[in-house]
Amino acid sequence: MELLPDWVTGFVDGEGCFYVGINRHPEMTVGFQVLPEFRVVQHKNDIQILYALKRFFGFGIVCKNHDDRFEFRVRKLDSLLKICEFFNRHPLKTKKAIEFKRFQRILHWMKGKKHLTIEGLVKITETAQTMNRADSQALQQIMKELKEKTG
Amino acid sequence: MELLPDWVTGFVDGEGCFYVGINRHPEMTVGFQVLPEFRVVQHKNDIQILYALKRFFGFGIVCKNHDDRFEFRVRKLDSLLKICEFFNRHPLKTKKAIEFKRFQRILHWMKGKKHLTIEGLVKITETAQTMNRADSQALQQIMKELKEKTG
Repeated sequence: MELLPDWVTGFVDGEGCFYVGINRHPEMTVGFQVLPEFRVVQHKNDIQILYALKRFFGFGIVCKNHDDRFEFRVRKLDSLLKICEFFNRHPLKTKKAIEFKRFQRILHWMKGKKHLTIEGLVKITETAQTMNRADSQALQQIMKELKEKTG
Repeated sequence: MELLPDWVTGFVDGEGCFYVGINRHPEMTVGFQVLPEFRVVQHKNDIQILYALKRFFGFGIVCKNHDDRFEFRVRKLDSLLKICEFFNRHPLKTKKAIEFKRFQRILHWMKGKKHLTIEGLVKITETAQTMNRADSQALQQIMKELKEKTG
């Protein structure tokens, strides 16, 4: 099955997710790890669509999500930046475009290694807090700890 | 906002619904009314996408679904047949394509007035039973009553 670029944008407008996780990671200088992720989740009956997306982009993996659901997932920074290039050429039409802009901003900060500094991590956490599906309580706690570090 | 045909297919692959309701209607000779419907539901934040779909197709209405959700809805047979023409030109990629084929088959039977005969209604009900979101118990009961009518 071959996918067309505009179809991919329409499908991602409906089913895609731009997510930025921030996890505690004691081995890192700043104490936290930033984990951006692009994913599309489908019922197992439509797993072939996820493989078609993987072929379309030329990277990412297809793996189990929960129960009967599978996901196409991209986590590598280089690949995520290519995802951004794609959606800049074929813009999202729903409010997901706003999520995407925030996601892209965080990726560019990461490319500039800003996530390895407290100041950068504060900006990333602030942006992540404005995104959908954000775990607001966890991010609030992280923000508090980061503010304490900067004194 | 202008929508591109492939975007519309991708978005409907994710968010669209082809539904055929069969309701009791004592005033009709066969005792039942067939109500096919195409709809796309979105959170109110994305209501502008529903209006864009309405402009794109040139028919249908945007109205409240539930709570914070709105829908773009098409119910007129002529308009639904145009929806079918569109998806025949720009085929759905997910398993929703199977739903669409069944939906289209029912519409063509309705165009041929088959839904006004018991035999036609039996075929329509059988097909509706194989579709997603079918209210299987209600359809089973209708099927039982139709079989009694045909003796």
